[in-house]
Amino acid sequence: MEADRNGMAVLEEEECLRRLGRNGIGRLAVTVGALPVIFPIGYAMHEGAVYFRTAPGTKLAAASADAIVAFEVDQVDPLSHCGWSVVIVGPASIVDPSEPGLADLPIPRWVSNAPEHVVRVAPGLISGREIT
Amino acid sequence: MEADRNGMAVLEEEECLRRLGRNGIGRLAVTVGALPVIFPIGYAMHEGAVYFRTAPGTKLAAASADAIVAFEVDQVDPLSHCGWSVVIVGPASIVDPSEPGLADLPIPRWVSNAPEHVVRVAPGLISGREIT
Repeated sequence: MEADRNGMAVLEEEECLRRLGRNGIGRLAVTVGALPVIFPIGYAMHEGAVYFRTAPGTKLAAASADAIVAFEVDQVDPLSHCGWSVVIVGPASIVDPSEPGLADLPIPRWVSNAPEHVVRVAPGLISGREIT
Repeated sequence: MEADRNGMAVLEEEECLRRLGRNGIGRLAVTVGALPVIFPIGYAMHEGAVYFRTAPGTKLAAASADAIVAFEVDQVDPLSHCGWSVVIVGPASIVDPSEPGLADLPIPRWVSNAPEHVVRVAPGLISGREIT
């Protein structure tokens, strides 16, 4: 497996997508008022893109509309110092949740009975690293 | 406890610092070549600031020198949909690891025998939210 300059294994795109495909929780980095911020989000993958829900009018909704964002999933063991991290960087957009393929997508819903947007992060760049 | 518009509890600064003080693993959002990216990092707190190690010459080192960054820690349970997240946004700078107080600081070292910088993220803004 290819290694980067720090000796971390470089994960190939197919492997990155496989690890993203476990769904669950990831972290989204967006820019709000020129400052970076990070939100943990529940997500689901569909055709290589990341989907999550957010309430209209929030900082997250505003920041993730038509912005370039970074979405990361990882698994890290602080004791053994082993772990991996996969990052997707791409444009985010608010999509119609009734689009084909999305209605049945198991996108986690964290805040019940709130109205919500569904946001797609298209996979512009995908990269992954692993420390073993 | 104060709640935000989405019904999430707002954590006070003292409580945010207490949760950051558990050390461990967090995620750092930085801008590399105008694109956002996220790295998982091992960190330690000292006098309200976040400290982590990085190898000189890396994207992380370059991006975290004199930039405004966001650092986030969280604990999220995907089953119960409970969790919390604390974010520090502030300027990052490379510091001398022999500074008073830093030499004995237990900043995790992930890649052994690599030369390294120690980076400080000063606490410009601290915020936290909890879903219970």
